[in-house]
Parts: sequence; structure tokens; C-alpha cells
Amino acid sequence: MRVLVTGAAGFLGTRLIKALLADRDGSADSVRVIAADTVACPIEDERVERRTGSIADAGMVGSIVDRDVDVIYHLAAVVSGQAEEDFDLGMQVNLDGTRQLLEACRRLPRPPRVVFASSVAVFGTPLPPIVPEDVVVAPQSSYGVEKAIGELLVSEYSRRGFIDGIACRLPTVAVRSGSANTALSSFVSGIIREPLAGIDAVCPVPLDTSLWVCSPGIVIENLRHAGAMDTAGVGSRRMVSLPGLTVTPAAMLAALERLAGAAVRRRVRCEPDARTTRFVCSWPGALDVTRALALGFRADRDVDALVAQYIAERRGRA
Amino acid sequence: MRVLVTGAAGFLGTRLIKALLADRDGSADSVRVIAADTVACPIEDERVERRTGSIADAGMVGSIVDRDVDVIYHLAAVVSGQAEEDFDLGMQVNLDGTRQLLEACRRLPRPPRVVFASSVAVFGTPLPPIVPEDVVVAPQSSYGVEKAIGELLVSEYSRRGFIDGIACRLPTVAVRSGSANTALSSFVSGIIREPLAGIDAVCPVPLDTSLWVCSPGIVIENLRHAGAMDTAGVGSRRMVSLPGLTVTPAAMLAALERLAGAAVRRRVRCEPDARTTRFVCSWPGALDVTRALALGFRADRDVDALVAQYIAERRGRA
Repeated sequence: MRVLVTGAAGFLGTRLIKALLADRDGSADSVRVIAADTVACPIEDERVERRTGSIADAGMVGSIVDRDVDVIYHLAAVVSGQAEEDFDLGMQVNLDGTRQLLEACRRLPRPPRVVFASSVAVFGTPLPPIVPEDVVVAPQSSYGVEKAIGELLVSEYSRRGFIDGIACRLPTVAVRSGSANTALSSFVSGIIREPLAGIDAVCPVPLDTSLWVCSPGIVIENLRHAGAMDTAGVGSRRMVSLPGLTVTPAAMLAALERLAGAAVRRRVRCEPDARTTRFVCSWPGALDVTRALALGFRADRDVDALVAQYIAERRGRA
Repeated sequence: MRVLVTGAAGFLGTRLIKALLADRDGSADSVRVIAADTVACPIEDERVERRTGSIADAGMVGSIVDRDVDVIYHLAAVVSGQAEEDFDLGMQVNLDGTRQLLEACRRLPRPPRVVFASSVAVFGTPLPPIVPEDVVVAPQSSYGVEKAIGELLVSEYSRRGFIDGIACRLPTVAVRSGSANTALSSFVSGIIREPLAGIDAVCPVPLDTSLWVCSPGIVIENLRHAGAMDTAGVGSRRMVSLPGLTVTPAAMLAALERLAGAAVRRRVRCEPDARTTRFVCSWPGALDVTRALALGFRADRDVDALVAQYIAERRGRA
């Protein structure tokens, strides 16, 4: 199987490639991955070919989309905070880059599976308490607009038979290892990761803000499912809201206290920031994922499982 | 007032410019129009500057967006049938052209009003019998996708303060004078216009198909309202479903018989065409236009008024 991963050096890209290489069903031997990102993917393996460059660069895109590619995981993106700060960069990478990638697919002898990482940022207030998949997208950030346009393009290129695409609306992924990034949702991981590392952290939204989150483990599993599933059941609308958990920062911190103690919990204080709160509160706190579950996507068990997954991973590294 | 009209040589563009020039409230003396289209706008008037070129051409777009433009009516588009036949052309004109126009606006000293002609083709089945404005767009044609992306861009560029935009989802405009075009909805005018001219016509969809239509008179009035209205009440979602009438070809032909006689009616026969029917039936037959009416947009009275408007116009020309 030949796979292209864009955003390969990122948190999800790196984990996805490791998962593809680790498969124990025999497929891992024959897997060949092109790992594309603006910086080199850290994975060194003879099955992985690393390429550096921006997907906003047409030459780069042409060079990474191989004639015989089976599956493309398109994860590369300028994240929400940065896309809001730098409108041109967000449009170039998130919109033009995605379009160039789809155009390159169009020239292939057979349409590849394209898994596009979309986001709940495509929605926007006012929203019902549980957001169905047929509610209008009304993004209130540049990132959300760019992802919403990407979804429309994935559906259209699929309808035309240029690709066999699926746009996965990822929940906020938590807990992420590594350091904070410029995503407006970065704090969702930070309020668990930092105190566990002995660092004080700030929650920039009210503690009762509803968040739609998913563990890295489940997201990787779901992305791989999107890459392998039969898309016949998906229909003409190729956007799928992936399962998540509705949690509040308060519930996450309570889980942290249960699993790591009150002293760790006390390292997090709440100082709502108006700008972050405005954006985060425009994202849905709960989605109807009946369709995703019927299509075989999976969900985390509960908030404790989410925090426990990170604690176990941390112990594994130590 | 300085106005730019794209698609100025088209049916709506020409009528819009004539209406702007004819205003009796004193504003017509000072109006200056740049009339842009791929062919020269037929209106000769010292207040109108005609420019020819494609809005897919960045140089052309730069040259028509004047520093002191007040209102832009962006009507230029590759129509639905042609966009379906020629994917690249549709994307270049309907998507890239719109984006280039918005980018040119961004460089102006103050954000102009931009009225973007969108379409009910942004929707797609399954749809409720009366389509609310907050239902998801799920276009099932390239034209619909390109218009849906245009709407998102108009909202985003407005949110950013680059323009003060409004995207009007126009009903199918009938009865259009002139000849048939490659829009999939062209027959809606043809089944009235051709028999009145003594020409046999074919209705390519079942006679009981629900259509969402509006007369040219009301559409021009509503476009001008969109160009002049206070957008404070529009909110962050800049798409508005303009009022229309739900009619069937059968009801239109009954009106034709009432107003022009049975012999004229008999010139139209029904021969459903699978491709046209598929596309037209994916468009909504009725929309909830509560918001548009509250914003001051107007509706036609009934199907007889629609047909009578064309008959009166025809007599006026004769």
C-alpha cells in the first residue's frame, strides 16, 4: 500500500505513520509512506520517504503525489490561531494547498482515497445543544472557513470521480504531548499536560465551557478507518463528524485530580481570555455522531480514559 | 455613486444598469457605472464605462475595481450547465474570479458593498419541503459548489472587514427574454417565452416538479435593495435566500393558457430528460424567506403576475 501523509511531522502525522508501520496484520511490510511536511518528519525507517516543502507550493505538491498512491491523509494545515493572525498564509496553505493536492489527484490513473482532516470549527453560533450533521456550516474563523471550503471540494472532487474522499471533522485532540501550539484549542491539552510536568497552566475559557474532544489514540484509529473503509455507505456528502466526548475544563481537571492528585490539579488556574473564549465558544460542544458510529468510527469511553491515556503514555516515555 | 457590475452584458446585468440609470430620485445623475463582461455591455450612456475581459483574469479584475467604488454587483458566472460540462472553466470563473474580485476589494481604502449573486443550487437533496436558511448546503453540481464557496468567502471577507458583503440566493429568474442559455433552468423561461413567439417548446422535467422562481422585475428590485440596505441586521451569515414563488411547470402553463389562450399553451410538450430532471430536482422548490422579508426584500404576487410581466414587456418591445 502506498500512502501519502501531509503534515507528517506534526503530532497526528507522526503518530499515524508509526501506526501504519506497526501494523501486525502483515500489511506493514509492504507499506510505503511519503511523509511530507515543511520540516522533516522525525521517523527514520526504510519504508518512509521524507519530503520537505509547503503544500502551498505547486511544485512540491506535484512531486509528492505519486502515480500509484492508494491513500492520502491530508493533515497539513495552518492552525486556527495562526490562520486568524495571518489571513494570506491560512488561505494559501489551507485553501490553495488543499486544492492543489486535489488537482494533482485528478491527474492520476485511478482516484485515490483522500482523508481530509476537517474540524468542528466549520460550525458557528447559534447552534443547537447537540449539533446534527445537516446543520449549516457558519464558520466564525478563517480556519473554519478554509476547512469548510476544503470539505466542499472533497465532496465535489469525489462526485466527479477525481478522488474517493472523506472529510473527517476531528474533535479537539487531547491530551497532546509536546509543547503548546498556536491552535486556539491548545489549552485543552495544556491544562492536563503542563501540571503533570510540574508546570503551572492557565485555562483561558470558563471552567464550564463545553468542549468536544477525542484522545490521540482514537483519532488515529478513526483516521486509519477513514483510509480503509468502504465509502459506499457515506453517500454524496463526504463530511463526517467524528465521535468525541463532551467535556468541560472542570471535568477534565476533576479527572486529573482523581488520577494524579490534588496538588497537580492546583497547578491550573482559570483566567478567561475574551478572544479565545469567543472563538472556542463558537465551536460545538456536542455533535450527533450516529452516522459516524454506523460507519464504524469509534469513541473514547470517558474523560478519565482520556487523561489516563496521556498519563500512561508519559510513563511509557519515562 | 460609483458602481461596478460584473456580468454587465447578461440578462440581469443589463437590466440592473438600466434601473440604476433610470432612477428618478436624483441619484441617477451622479451614478457612474463600470460595466464589465467578456463581451461589451449593450448600454451606451455617458455614465457607463464598458470594459471587456474575464474576471478569471487578474489584470482585468485589478483594472475594474476602482479606488472609489461604492457598490459592486458581482453577477458574472459560468452558468450551471456549462460549469458541469467544463469543470476547469467553472472553477476559474466562479471560484477564482470571485476570489480575485474580493482580493481587489481588500486593497481599497474603504470596504465596498459587494452584492454576490448566489443560487439555490447551493442546496442539495435530501431537503425538507420548505428549506430553512440554516439547513446545510450540500450542492450536487459544480455550479452549486462554486456558489457555496463564494458565499463562504463573502461572509469571511465581511467578517474581516475587507468588504461589506451580502450573498443573495436568487431563485430561478423567469421569464427571461432573449434566447435559451446553457443554464439547466433555462427551460423555465423557455416554456413561456417560446410559445408566445410562436415556437414549439419542450419541458424537460415532469410537469409537477416544484420550481422556485422570481420575475426579472422583482429580482432587479431586490438586487438594488441588497446594494443599498443597512447590513447591520444581516448578522455574521451574509447569505440570504431571496423570496420566490413555488410553481410547477403545470401551473406556469395554466397561467399561460389563461393569459394567452389554449393554442399558445399547446405549443409546449413535456419530454422529461433524465440529466436535467436530476439536477433540477436537487434544487429546493420552496424556501423559508422570513428573514429576507424582514430585511425588506420583496416577492412576486403569483404565477399569473410572473407570466403577465413578460407578456407586458413583450408588448412594450413590439
